[in-house]
Amino acid sequence: MSSTSGVLFRISTFGESHGGGVGVVVDGCPPGLALDLPSIQEDLDRRRPGQSRLVTQRNEGDEVEILSGLEDGVTTGAPIAMLVRNRDQNSGAYDHLRDVYRPSHADWTYDAKYGIRSVAGGGRSSARETIGRVAAAAIARQLLTAAAGIEVLAWVSAVHDVDASASIDAAQVTLEAVEADPTRCPSPPHAAAITAAIEAARRDGDSLGGIVTCVVRHLPAGLGEPAFDRFEADLAKATMSLPATKGFEIGSGFGAATMTGRTHNDPFVPGPDGRPRTLTNHSGGVQGGITNGEDVLFRVAFKPTATISSEQSTVTRDNQATTLEAKGRHDPCVLPRAVPMVEAAALLVSADHWLRQQALSSLRRA
Amino acid sequence: MSSTSGVLFRISTFGESHGGGVGVVVDGCPPGLALDLPSIQEDLDRRRPGQSRLVTQRNEGDEVEILSGLEDGVTTGAPIAMLVRNRDQNSGAYDHLRDVYRPSHADWTYDAKYGIRSVAGGGRSSARETIGRVAAAAIARQLLTAAAGIEVLAWVSAVHDVDASASIDAAQVTLEAVEADPTRCPSPPHAAAITAAIEAARRDGDSLGGIVTCVVRHLPAGLGEPAFDRFEADLAKATMSLPATKGFEIGSGFGAATMTGRTHNDPFVPGPDGRPRTLTNHSGGVQGGITNGEDVLFRVAFKPTATISSEQSTVTRDNQATTLEAKGRHDPCVLPRAVPMVEAAALLVSADHWLRQQALSSLRRA
Amino acid sequence: MSSTSGVLFRISTFGESHGGGVGVVVDGCPPGLALDLPSIQEDLDRRRPGQSRLVTQRNEGDEVEILSGLEDGVTTGAPIAMLVRNRDQNSGAYDHLRDVYRPSHADWTYDAKYGIRSVAGGGRSSARETIGRVAAAAIARQLLTAAAGIEVLAWVSAVHDVDASASIDAAQVTLEAVEADPTRCPSPPHAAAITAAIEAARRDGDSLGGIVTCVVRHLPAGLGEPAFDRFEADLAKATMSLPATKGFEIGSGFGAATMTGRTHNDPFVPGPDGRPRTLTNHSGGVQGGITNGEDVLFRVAFKPTATISSEQSTVTRDNQATTLEAKGRHDPCVLPRAVPMVEAAALLVSADHWLRQQALSSLRRA
Amino acid sequence: MSSTSGVLFRISTFGESHGGGVGVVVDGCPPGLALDLPSIQEDLDRRRPGQSRLVTQRNEGDEVEILSGLEDGVTTGAPIAMLVRNRDQNSGAYDHLRDVYRPSHADWTYDAKYGIRSVAGGGRSSARETIGRVAAAAIARQLLTAAAGIEVLAWVSAVHDVDASASIDAAQVTLEAVEADPTRCPSPPHAAAITAAIEAARRDGDSLGGIVTCVVRHLPAGLGEPAFDRFEADLAKATMSLPATKGFEIGSGFGAATMTGRTHNDPFVPGPDGRPRTLTNHSGGVQGGITNGEDVLFRVAFKPTATISSEQSTVTRDNQATTLEAKGRHDPCVLPRAVPMVEAAALLVSADHWLRQQALSSLRRA
Repeated sequence: MSSTSGVLFRISTFGESHGGGVGVVVDGCPPGLALDLPSIQEDLDRRRPGQSRLVTQRNEGDEVEILSGLEDGVTTGAPIAMLVRNRDQNSGAYDHLRDVYRPSHADWTYDAKYGIRSVAGGGRSSARETIGRVAAAAIARQLLTAAAGIEVLAWVSAVHDVDASASIDAAQVTLEAVEADPTRCPSPPHAAAITAAIEAARRDGDSLGGIVTCVVRHLPAGLGEPAFDRFEADLAKATMSLPATKGFEIGSGFGAATMTGRTHNDPFVPGPDGRPRTLTNHSGGVQGGITNGEDVLFRVAFKPTATISSEQSTVTRDNQATTLEAKGRHDPCVLPRAVPMVEAAALLVSADHWLRQQALSSLRRA
Repeated sequence: MSSTSGVLFRISTFGESHGGGVGVVVDGCPPGLALDLPSIQEDLDRRRPGQSRLVTQRNEGDEVEILSGLEDGVTTGAPIAMLVRNRDQNSGAYDHLRDVYRPSHADWTYDAKYGIRSVAGGGRSSARETIGRVAAAAIARQLLTAAAGIEVLAWVSAVHDVDASASIDAAQVTLEAVEADPTRCPSPPHAAAITAAIEAARRDGDSLGGIVTCVVRHLPAGLGEPAFDRFEADLAKATMSLPATKGFEIGSGFGAATMTGRTHNDPFVPGPDGRPRTLTNHSGGVQGGITNGEDVLFRVAFKPTATISSEQSTVTRDNQATTLEAKGRHDPCVLPRAVPMVEAAALLVSADHWLRQQALSSLRRA
Repeated sequence: MSSTSGVLFRISTFGESHGGGVGVVVDGCPPGLALDLPSIQEDLDRRRPGQSRLVTQRNEGDEVEILSGLEDGVTTGAPIAMLVRNRDQNSGAYDHLRDVYRPSHADWTYDAKYGIRSVAGGGRSSARETIGRVAAAAIARQLLTAAAGIEVLAWVSAVHDVDASASIDAAQVTLEAVEADPTRCPSPPHAAAITAAIEAARRDGDSLGGIVTCVVRHLPAGLGEPAFDRFEADLAKATMSLPATKGFEIGSGFGAATMTGRTHNDPFVPGPDGRPRTLTNHSGGVQGGITNGEDVLFRVAFKPTATISSEQSTVTRDNQATTLEAKGRHDPCVLPRAVPMVEAAALLVSADHWLRQQALSSLRRA
Repeated sequence: MSSTSGVLFRISTFGESHGGGVGVVVDGCPPGLALDLPSIQEDLDRRRPGQSRLVTQRNEGDEVEILSGLEDGVTTGAPIAMLVRNRDQNSGAYDHLRDVYRPSHADWTYDAKYGIRSVAGGGRSSARETIGRVAAAAIARQLLTAAAGIEVLAWVSAVHDVDASASIDAAQVTLEAVEADPTRCPSPPHAAAITAAIEAARRDGDSLGGIVTCVVRHLPAGLGEPAFDRFEADLAKATMSLPATKGFEIGSGFGAATMTGRTHNDPFVPGPDGRPRTLTNHSGGVQGGITNGEDVLFRVAFKPTATISSEQSTVTRDNQATTLEAKGRHDPCVLPRAVPMVEAAALLVSADHWLRQQALSSLRRA
């Protein structure tokens, strides 16, 4: 179960940083969806290190192969398997980590759980695992667009002490604005400050955390299922299962704790299309676990990259004190790459709940 | 699926505020557990309005009946069904809500999803649904205690602008300290301030949000399953599916966003029992989605109660503007009652993952 | 998981022959279904010993209470919990079985699995467990009728050496014909012979096996999901999980083994409604795991009741040879009562797959 | 869900006869299992047309690549993905089938369900789908052997009117005896008769059905879970989801219908190892859905291959009458190749239930 997610739009990921490759099986995608295959590759390219959809050219790496489930580019209802081969594996580069636990990595916990671990590249705990999610979510994106015009967009709203949240209008931000800068922060002055902060951290052998904000637009009211599979509960699980996440909040989030009911409640007003709208959106687009037709808006906190070029205290596999310092180049901030991962979480949850609602509302249609 | 949770310790809740009752079926509890039945009732009593385990006497209401799964008080491995009857139903009290949507309640979203809703008491969106979770979790608690000495404890750490977090040592707080005050805040001066704040809100016809903190102690290293069923991901889902929750964070949480790797990483040191320990616990007891043997520590944000005694703008079912003001007595702050619900979430997740690890580690035992 | 079944029309049963009662939680029934409540009770009454829907009056026992999920008799989309209380429990009657294993019962296997068993009435292995299935299926029946006019009907086609199969036209048999005789065999001369055979077995302290045949009519083409959840695979699981079943076959069944392709293949002919029909139905209404629009026709073999009034060799719990002879009155043939259980299996599978197809076909509708 | 099976030993298959390949993701295999990789390929080779493990040499085709989940050949607990590439695809060979429905194939039902179908090679309904099951089952086999000495063996017991059942002692038959003849019938005289019957059918443009019998040996008592996931219910589903199966029976099977309790009940006798044994095995190794420690013995009926070299009546996609005659070489009897598929079903069910019991019995171990 641990690598499977979803009830009706169901994905099973596989693969680690070493070995033949990583990928995913998507089971439950409705038949008849004409896939834009280059667009799947584009979504995958966004999660590669240092990439931005608009400013860089893909010239290597991580090409996805679709193994099954299509007939002339159209989904048949059969499982869609996708594979991305691993390359450039220099497993010798990890030999010095064989007998030592890197602080705040999953080295010790994998040993505790499995009694064995894939040293090279972090094994299953590698962020490469998310390739499968992003590839599956690229299909979910096309399904949601075709079926209901639903749109998911995420961006970097904060890195370390640079917080762009107040300068970004979640209702108006565009993919172009997000992809205009490699930081994926759509506020240009903040993007510049984030770039500077990341460069400083890199020079200092340190790393930085931050926040990704995500909006889901044009969701119909009625998605999400009480009690356990509330829309926000599934979003929380999908994002908190991404590497390096430490917190999730929807709408008012932790800010709700210091608010009062009078200021927090979202007043209803008659909507032009015959359904109620809210004047504010502290609810974040969900009420009672079900979408209310407003934008779903949530934020995800990421910790600083655990790999840093500084000497750290740690222990060996046989519980002896030692020190460790990472060598080579490391990404001092995962936030820009985390954007497509957060979008993937929202896309997969939305597609699953959209399909579930098709079944639940069947009698009303009949 | 929406009312079922867990892979091996699996619960299905049912019931709403009107009708015959609420309850739960627990499937997968191992046989041979001698249940302390009064203790199940005590856990349930903690979630009733205005109750505290130590300071009040239960003299009415919400008695649980165990319908199945026991032989002489010992679990047989069969499903354990538990039922709590509804009482005092004055469904007429809700007649004025039949054609109007209360702001920030689930009235409109249930209508949008189902085309029908249980007006009386909020139906399935009522907090009474959590009775089933708390009853099931009371069994999980006894399983975890008996099998592994695992302990779950939650408390109110903040209400509105009263924040007791810095005054509470999560490693040391006791059930007695939590239950010593009806606020369930184990810092007496803050408890007094919270009491005053709640009383003021009540007088003002307003309501307050807050934060519940929870610790899971003595968890063995190795629980939680990458990729999707990470321990913290399942905690996030379990808590974000509780009524009125808006945010979840583990360990450093949103604070991680402004930290650097050098300060955030938890250095390993040799532990006295032959396994690594960490000097700090920014990880919150999980690394790579798997418990590392330290305390699991997380926080959940609750919004202010949506029902307030103030006039609010809203719309009718036929999309006409109107106003609404709640009548009668309302609980202006759910935080004290939310404590056992948050514990229930942690207990159910811990029991499920503990059982899953028993299967996964089978070859190592063999 | 063991007491939960279905993906979208999902049921969880609970209860054993002793204790508070038996029942079921139905999760996933679409909202807006106006339930005929007496009809649920009627379906339940059919599975009671010695009952026939048309010829007997219910004047006692096994009344179902619906605890949740309805508003004015209409489904709300919330879980529907149903409870049937246990009565007349004389657990002392089972004391002599505490330390001995009855041959071909589940006494030894429950002990082996659980290390504990409910001696009274067989515990969870009691046929009382099927009350929950039949109650849930009564709702499925109403859903299938309302949504798609689907009809499920089963009957006794053979008991011991009396085989009525050749005399019953599965396409024409009616509920009235089935219920016209307590044997539930719709061929009157065979019903008489079966009655005689059962009476002879009773006098002889013996018991009889037999076969139930079931037809599902008016199923739309397209239900069932390759690869694992084929329509017939789910039927097989649903029926082979009923007490006392030993075999399942669909369409030509085991007879297919001795046929050739030329005689077994079902030729297609143009149907009057624009879709293909088959001239024969060796396929039993499914091809490639998916319904083809013809009647689904299957048969289930039941073993003779294990409880017999004859001395049998067996062992005690401490592995000593002994003998055992059942006392009191026993039902020497479960076949008549098995009819509603087999119908329940088909109803639950049909409802689940009908709902799944609503989701899968969503893009084609859009 | 439709391509996923199992609770703890969980597999997801993908792929069809055209496209990049077929395969499987195995999730939940315990860590620490040293895999014999050539043995996986050998199990796969057995399901290829006209192969026998002992008498033929593999020199082409269907090589499996393991993409993930291993470290130095040992399972890590991560998902194990396996891929077999498709070859020799002459999709033009299927052009004449684009607008016509082959009788007793899945052509019409796939169209009815999906509105689209993969014409080439039958798409997802192709027996190539079972490659994933057999590959996953090869791992299950090694797990079961290593963990508990459990053994699964199947053979052809009947083809058309040649029935070898009475000549084969299920308790004694060996893999060598099964693989000694390409028919996989371990009774040499019957094997010869089957060979002759198949050759005659081939010459006649016809095809034959038959029966596969399977035994699971050395299963511990206690596997299988009431109510729905009975061991035989899961076996029934696993086998009835294989292509071309029409019936399943366990132990006495349909023969139970004509037996009496006195002859059917399996008397217990004290076993030499302190647990009860049965003198007969009409139960087929399961009682109350749980294994009793005796051999699990079941039979599966297969219909004659639907593809025959004879003219048949059928209809076009636009519902016009036409005729169809298959061209080229076809396998007139799937029985020999079905043997490893039936074994796969039993292996996957056994591995899943063995793991589930490890969790369930956790308290008894503690």
